[in-house]
Order: sequence, then structure tokens, then C-alpha cells
Amino acid sequence: MKQTIDSELSLVSYIRERFKKRPARLAQREKLLVGIGDDGAVFDAGGRQVVVTTDAMAEGIHFDHLYCTPYQVGFKLVTVNVSDVFAMNANPAYLLLSLTLPKGLDVGYFTGFMDGVMNATDMYGVELIGGDITSSMSAVTVSATLIGFTDAPIKRDGASVGDLLYVTGHLGDSACALGLLKQRGRPVFLEKGQRVELPLSWPAMEPLLWKHLMPRPHKPEVASGCASAMMDVSDGLSIDLIRLCAESGTGARVYERQLPMSKEMVEACLYLKEDPLEFCLCGGEDYEYLFTTPVAVDGAFCIGEIIPEGIIIQDASGTERELKECGYEHFKD
Amino acid sequence: MKQTIDSELSLVSYIRERFKKRPARLAQREKLLVGIGDDGAVFDAGGRQVVVTTDAMAEGIHFDHLYCTPYQVGFKLVTVNVSDVFAMNANPAYLLLSLTLPKGLDVGYFTGFMDGVMNATDMYGVELIGGDITSSMSAVTVSATLIGFTDAPIKRDGASVGDLLYVTGHLGDSACALGLLKQRGRPVFLEKGQRVELPLSWPAMEPLLWKHLMPRPHKPEVASGCASAMMDVSDGLSIDLIRLCAESGTGARVYERQLPMSKEMVEACLYLKEDPLEFCLCGGEDYEYLFTTPVAVDGAFCIGEIIPEGIIIQDASGTERELKECGYEHFKD
Repeated sequence: MKQTIDSELSLVSYIRERFKKRPARLAQREKLLVGIGDDGAVFDAGGRQVVVTTDAMAEGIHFDHLYCTPYQVGFKLVTVNVSDVFAMNANPAYLLLSLTLPKGLDVGYFTGFMDGVMNATDMYGVELIGGDITSSMSAVTVSATLIGFTDAPIKRDGASVGDLLYVTGHLGDSACALGLLKQRGRPVFLEKGQRVELPLSWPAMEPLLWKHLMPRPHKPEVASGCASAMMDVSDGLSIDLIRLCAESGTGARVYERQLPMSKEMVEACLYLKEDPLEFCLCGGEDYEYLFTTPVAVDGAFCIGEIIPEGIIIQDASGTERELKECGYEHFKD
Repeated sequence: MKQTIDSELSLVSYIRERFKKRPARLAQREKLLVGIGDDGAVFDAGGRQVVVTTDAMAEGIHFDHLYCTPYQVGFKLVTVNVSDVFAMNANPAYLLLSLTLPKGLDVGYFTGFMDGVMNATDMYGVELIGGDITSSMSAVTVSATLIGFTDAPIKRDGASVGDLLYVTGHLGDSACALGLLKQRGRPVFLEKGQRVELPLSWPAMEPLLWKHLMPRPHKPEVASGCASAMMDVSDGLSIDLIRLCAESGTGARVYERQLPMSKEMVEACLYLKEDPLEFCLCGGEDYEYLFTTPVAVDGAFCIGEIIPEGIIIQDASGTERELKECGYEHFKD
């Protein structure tokens, strides 16, 4: 029987294992500070520590023009990469684009997409320095590489037993917004102030829609001086926490009642007949940060602690259960 | 009438123009040595000059599994990026991959592809440091970002009137090999020493097939100390020469009789009933280097000279004509 690829994690593990013992030039290997498996790679360029990250978005997988505009795709492509650079405790600086566009694509699509890229690069003080544009047989696939600089990268593997576990903002908003957009079935031009005719108040919906369509990550300054480990929450809390713990060789306990959820998300869940906790644990693309620290901090939500093993969630009644991997997984049916 | 995107060049010009006067942070702009429009971008990281380039390959456009294996795609993805780094007079060091793969893809495809990547990274002493793997709706799109280091980048814009024009190797081999592969219609497993049953001698075909399926660029050491401008010949001599001259604000005269063509290519053209000169001028993917220098050098082919304006080709009889842009253009029908 033909065996097919089945998860991003297994592919990354395969690559990491195979490339672990390659005879790369020693001189450059010594300069490599962070390799495969973190939000970004880090190398020492003699003066500054350079962070590099790359993230792709594919039509039909990461975005669907039933729900979003080319402008929003361009904007989001930049900001999801900014989020990865911030997650390394770095400042973004230079962007490269790799665009694969179908022949016959409307010029308005391309210029709209580039407007979104430009708005986002301006917002973060990033400069577009290069890239590649090629044609494709059908779908749009866009990929960006973002380069940043840091004095002290924060990796995923530094969590210790006893560390507190924090998240920088509300979780589940983005996934909930996608639910709203699917109900509506048409794009929302947020940047033009268009409203959406659903039986929900606009003030309740707008922040959710922004988080999904045009995420604007903030640098997690709160983590900068104290975090032992950090990553961005891009695939969902459960899967990302499992990854952080796997890298650190630890477990974690999460307290359900401490999970930060926005009142807008909870309100929209009533309308959607969805469970807010599910969006919070399994929804991706929130572009908040998950970090661990040995000392309590203000300005972020403490959601649990690092324990020797097991990924546990404790509900309001004190009952504990295993926190299972959930959320969007590439290559799964 | 709907206007559609029509050429990679026009899209790049559009981007370059729009992003020219963006308010990027001054501090980082001062460190940017080469931006949009060259083989790679270059910035100063405080100690070393860092070169970054990105190149994508899309199924059905850059490769077709009627003619090539996943291994060859992985190998070539690395080496086409190595070629761009070499073209900046830099040494490649770190690689990031951005892979968009259809759900249900055979594991053997993925591992074959990664074998090719690994073979190529080992060959060039490059280390894989990160990337992104996502699913796609149908086709395979692979993109790589390669980082290198240099002490003295060589750009496209430095050619002066009176400079001699050189190319480092035979042109047209790759395009000719593609012609042979299309005749055959099945992949060739070069790395396993498989032969191809066409009415041509294997010694005549093998070097051509390697150049197309598994290009192995060499660092153009000959240009390193003397070149005023350089780029790799990836889209074909005519289009690439036009680009170099546009960047430098010059013209060029090429002597047809001095164009380097391999005897294997000429032999295969007899079989294919194709014009070797056409492959030489219009065929892409040779991954040789085009450079200009004020002094004559050994170890490369002098094919012409830089003149104030016009892109001219002179045939063996001394007749001159305009060298028109030809070769593969994305987004053209």
C-alpha cells in the first residue's frame, strides 16, 4: 500500500533527524545558534545575531477568497512572519517574498496583495529587499522570509520544572472569526470600514475579524528580560504547548479557568453554537506568545506551570485530564 | 476588460518603484548594501556582509515529473539558489525550505526530494537551518532561501562602457536537454547511472542531462577579483544580458561566433532539428555566470563588450542586429 505523508510534525522530525549529523563546514556551524525546530533560526554574523524565518500561505489552505481579500493575504503574510521574529525576541528588519501566481491573474489582485504587504512592512519598519515571482498552474502560493536582529534570542527549549506558563493575549479569537466568516461567505474589507450583516453587534465582531484577517502581533516586551522559553501561538495552544514542552523536555499543567478569552469571542460562540474552550485550546492563528518564566510577571496571563511530564489541563472543579493535540493539522484529512 | 499580470519583469519593476521611498528605519536602511533587483540582497550585519536570495520552483512550470524525479527537484532547488549566491561573489552557508505539498503525497516523494536537498547541501557545505511545510490543494510548490557571506559583493549595475563581456561556460545545454527529455517523456535517474534509449550516444547526452536535471554551479573565481558586474544566466543569455545592461545603464555587443556552445549540444540539435544558436541565446537554466570586466581574463569566454546603448548581436559575416528578449517568460501564454 502506498504510504502518504501524514503530519507536518513527522516531516519536520524526519528532516531534523536526517540533517543532524551532516558534515557542514565547522566554521559556520559554530556560528549557528538556533537551527531547525524553533520559530526562527539564529546565526552569528560577526557583529549581530541574525534571526531568519520563513512561512508560506497557500490558497485553499491558509486563505480562501470567499472570506478574505488579496490585500489581507499580503498583510497577513508579512505579519505571521513578524510574529515568528518577535517570538525569538528579535526585531524584524528585512523581507523577501516568493510568489507563485497563476497565469492570467488579475492585476488588481497583485496590486491589492502588494498594498497589504506594504501596509504591514511600514507598520513594522520592515524593508522589502528581494524575492522571486513565478507562475503556477493554478493556485496562489505565497511565501515570505523575514530577517531580524536580536541580542538575546529566546528559544523553545529553555523551560524548567517550576516555571510559570504565560500567554500574552486572548486565545481563540481568530478561529472564532473564521467561523463567522464561513457563515457569511463573503470577504470583509476591514481596512475600508465595511460592516458585516450578521445578527451580532459590530463592536463585538470587529476585533475578532481583525485578529483573523489582519493579525497585528505586538512584540512581547513582557517576556524579553525574563522568559526561559517562548514561541508564538500560531497553530493553537494545545499543539504549540506540546511542542514547547517537547523541546524543553518537560510537561505542563494548564488551568482552564485561567485561560484568557475575549468577551467578544464568548458572545460570538453563543451565536455560532460553538464551545469557546475549544476555540481557545484548538484554534490557531492568534499570534500571541506562549512563554515560561521562573518569576511572576505583570502584563500577561498566567495559565499554568511547567511540570516534569505530561500535558495536563485542570478544569474549574479541579479535575485533571490530558490536554490532547487538537487544531488544524496539515496533511490530515 | 480585466487586465491580467503579464510579465515577471513588469511585476518586479512595479514592486521596486512602489517600495523605493518607504519610510523604513534609517538605521537599518544604511546597512542595506543591495536591495531589490539583483541575484541576492546584501546587508551588513555589523561583522560580515550577508547575502540572501530566494527562488521557488512550481510543478508544471519549473519541473514536470514526466521528465524528472523528486530527488532531482530537491537537488536543483538548492543549487539554483547556490548559483544566485555565487553570482553575488559570496559563499553559501544556510538554507531554509518552504514546502507546499499536496495532501496524500507519497512518502517516497518527500524522502526522495529531501535526499536531493541533502546531497546538494553536502556538496556545497550548506546547512539546513529551518523552514516551513504546509499542505496545498494540488500541486507541489517548493521555495528555498539561501544565506551566504561575502567580503565584496558583485552587483549587476557596475558595468562600464568599454568593459569586456564574459560568460563562464557553455550556454544552451540545459534547454537542449529539456528538448531531449520531452522526446523521451520519462524521468532519467542520473544519480543511479540509468541510460536513455535515444538515437544519440550516452557520452553526448549525459552532460546535457546533468546540466538540466541536476545543475552543479561552480563559484566563478575568475570573476572574483576583477568583475565590474555579474549575474547568473538563469533565464537565458538574451534576457539576462538585457537585465544586466538595464541595471548598469549601458548597452552591449555580442559576437555570435564567440558564443560558447558544447559539441554535445550541437550534436543533439541535429537530432532534435533545432537551432543551437536559439538554445544558446534563449535557453535558460544554464547556471553559468555573465560578467563584465575592464581587463581581459583567462578561464572564461569573452563574448562581447559593453557599449553605450543598444543590445546588439553581430553574426559571423559582421552583420549586426538587435538582440531581442527571448526565452521563458512567466505569465506569458
